[in-house]
Amino acid sequence: MSLRLEKGARLVAATHNPGKARELAALLEDRFEVVSAAELGLAEPDEPETTFVGNALVKARAAADATGLIALADDSGLCVAGLGGAPGVHSARWAGPDRDFAHAMDLVARRLSESTSEETDAWFICALAVAWPGGPMVAVEGRVDGTLSFPPRGSRGFGYDPIFTAEGETLTFGEMDPAAKHAMSHRARAFAALKAALF
Amino acid sequence: MSLRLEKGARLVAATHNPGKARELAALLEDRFEVVSAAELGLAEPDEPETTFVGNALVKARAAADATGLIALADDSGLCVAGLGGAPGVHSARWAGPDRDFAHAMDLVARRLSESTSEETDAWFICALAVAWPGGPMVAVEGRVDGTLSFPPRGSRGFGYDPIFTAEGETLTFGEMDPAAKHAMSHRARAFAALKAALF
Repeated sequence: MSLRLEKGARLVAATHNPGKARELAALLEDRFEVVSAAELGLAEPDEPETTFVGNALVKARAAADATGLIALADDSGLCVAGLGGAPGVHSARWAGPDRDFAHAMDLVARRLSESTSEETDAWFICALAVAWPGGPMVAVEGRVDGTLSFPPRGSRGFGYDPIFTAEGETLTFGEMDPAAKHAMSHRARAFAALKAALF
Repeated sequence: MSLRLEKGARLVAATHNPGKARELAALLEDRFEVVSAAELGLAEPDEPETTFVGNALVKARAAADATGLIALADDSGLCVAGLGGAPGVHSARWAGPDRDFAHAMDLVARRLSESTSEETDAWFICALAVAWPGGPMVAVEGRVDGTLSFPPRGSRGFGYDPIFTAEGETLTFGEMDPAAKHAMSHRARAFAALKAALF
């Protein structure tokens, strides 16, 4: 076999968010037919690992084995130097079941003020994994470095975007034009790496 | 880039066991120049993940980023159905710092006798991961299914081999001729999958 994704292939996106499955299809330049794990009736797997790549692989592996299709999964989050890399793989969990990122950003600010380190260096990571049914797996990571600032600014992004300013920028990810943000984001870099490896 | 391992490439084996590095080189048909992480003075990384593939990737990633070389890492272990998959990624840990597998096999027998399930189905898993410096990662798994029996029999293998009999066999991995075992082992299957993917 060859570790290539052939144009027109049917992929399962290991996500239960139909919007995310569509976004993945677009990021892959609509070269593939992308169906979501939810559409195929798959259960949502745990995210038991301690790394983004580990979680993405577990999800891709499970989806590929359950469907017999090549599967694509992602995992991403924010790592803060002054918090020893937290929230990291727990980034979504810090927002709670209601996905309340105002609360999560507040928690980051509070923990940083309680921390002995006031290091506001931070980075976003996006891991992508592709698994072939019964076969190999490929994973890549994209990363963007920056600093945190409080209070949150801007309402254009999502998640922790309003407290994150990328290196060399003055606007937070929450204030930036979406196209400008997407050109430099951890997610864009991960997809570029995936395409370089598999297209 | 292409996810191929070109003949003659210099690889770092993410292991601190020189014997294991040589064995990896042999399993890769001596197509590569394999140096061990120990020879390059790398620290031994944690194995923090909950899956074999996750651990192999963490080790390969760390070695590739520290050396600038393509890195190869493995992680393997025994999973027992009646113990919910244990010892799994903790297979080496059950043998303690002295790598006392007589003790570890005894622990498996004891836990099984205390368990509500007397299910002796078991399987060995070997995960292999290759990481390119600053680049993508590829991972594969090999598996062999069998059953456990006590007391341990045979002194030819290592680790949990003396309690494991592969499906369709009558001898334990500890009793089998090494060549016969190597032809069917989880490790052989993982290397076959890796070669199919990357050679």
